Amino acid sequence: MPTLPRCFAPTAAASKVVTVSRDEAHHLTRVLRLRPGDGVGLFDGVGGEWVGMLKSVSPNVTVEIVDAAIPAPEPDVRVTLAIGVLKGAQMDVVVRDATMLGVFAIAPMATRHVSIARRGAPGGGALQRWQRVALASTRQCGRAVIPAVSPIVPFESVLAETHAEAILMGVEPDRLGDYPLLDAGPKKPTALVLIGPEGGWADGEIEMAVTRGARLVQLGPRTLRAEAAPIVALSSLWTQWGW
Amino acid sequence: MPTLPRCFAPTAAASKVVTVSRDEAHHLTRVLRLRPGDGVGLFDGVGGEWVGMLKSVSPNVTVEIVDAAIPAPEPDVRVTLAIGVLKGAQMDVVVRDATMLGVFAIAPMATRHVSIARRGAPGGGALQRWQRVALASTRQCGRAVIPAVSPIVPFESVLAETHAEAILMGVEPDRLGDYPLLDAGPKKPTALVLIGPEGGWADGEIEMAVTRGARLVQLGPRTLRAEAAPIVALSSLWTQWGW
Repeated sequence: MPTLPRCFAPTAAASKVVTVSRDEAHHLTRVLRLRPGDGVGLFDGVGGEWVGMLKSVSPNVTVEIVDAAIPAPEPDVRVTLAIGVLKGAQMDVVVRDATMLGVFAIAPMATRHVSIARRGAPGGGALQRWQRVALASTRQCGRAVIPAVSPIVPFESVLAETHAEAILMGVEPDRLGDYPLLDAGPKKPTALVLIGPEGGWADGEIEMAVTRGARLVQLGPRTLRAEAAPIVALSSLWTQWGW
Repeated sequence: MPTLPRCFAPTAAASKVVTVSRDEAHHLTRVLRLRPGDGVGLFDGVGGEWVGMLKSVSPNVTVEIVDAAIPAPEPDVRVTLAIGVLKGAQMDVVVRDATMLGVFAIAPMATRHVSIARRGAPGGGALQRWQRVALASTRQCGRAVIPAVSPIVPFESVLAETHAEAILMGVEPDRLGDYPLLDAGPKKPTALVLIGPEGGWADGEIEMAVTRGARLVQLGPRTLRAEAAPIVALSSLWTQWGW
């Protein structure tokens, strides 16, 4: 199946013709320069996928739904990636890549080694940017589901409030070999994957997570860049649990 | 073991005191602001690792070797990553991440869908930059081996000249499910991993690789950004073959 340019259309399930948002309209008609009659893929962000046709470009950009389509499969395990907030561009990379790698939700965390400045961000501007990045990555990678991105929450709250049936915590490589390499453990319907910020975990944090039932895993024998850790962890987990 | 700042010292195996290169000297004394007496890790790029102590900073920066150290383990499988040349910054990301993920060598390829401009690059400036990126990433990630980066070679030559005992070729997700998800196959001492450029493989290229014995694998069910494909492939391969 040739890949169609894709467009986010949250109301597609209930429509025959959808009027697309200004951002999506810009993408279709300015960036991709589509014209009426051109094929467009539509996704509603919660798992629906359709084949459509650009119907009009003025005054609004509208897309007529032609047929239902088979959405790209989602992983069996609903993974929430909880990560200590990284610097601006690095965090965007994390959101983009985690989306492409099929996470169900992204929870940016304030941990002890996350700078006060970054913790302090009330999530307003940053949160909206991350949500835009998640949408753009969803469009790009062919998913039909946009992962939810939550506001920044304290590490303790993430642990206290999770209902995940498996908790995995990535720890820095330790040459003494105390922790197993990335062993996903048994496949559960839901999992929480904890990744530290650039400065790593504070000691108390690792103990707190272990008390809460987290399994400590090393992300390979070398030190990973902070923004690469999630993509490595997720690729390894899907290899073990199934993509 | 607390992590020491690291320094590339190709002659360390035969020295008691090494004079470090200008670039490394700058890194130790200007970027990290180390002073005589501070601990320094030394690696020779071919698997040797030592603990040293900064001895002098003027007129030359010298490091005294204190003890041999245990190098970070290298993977059992020597993987050559052959990748269609990407745009400047993207290719730097690939070299950086592939180094961090333990590849033995990196072969930038001219494939049919690599633009003439990029193919035409004689490898001079670009090759030297990639080699610097590989060194910097080696220093950062704690490896003792710097992967070799070759000049740009045509796809056909890579296939003709490889001695790898396993050849894996990453292909775009195909919803018809023709290719298995990333199944590494049996572990061999050497492997060639072929990753396409941003525009993907030309049809003839896939057939050519299959004729040469390549196993086609999908890199997950979603479309990956070109520069993320190697890190996903390598993380999955190490999960199957051992890190």
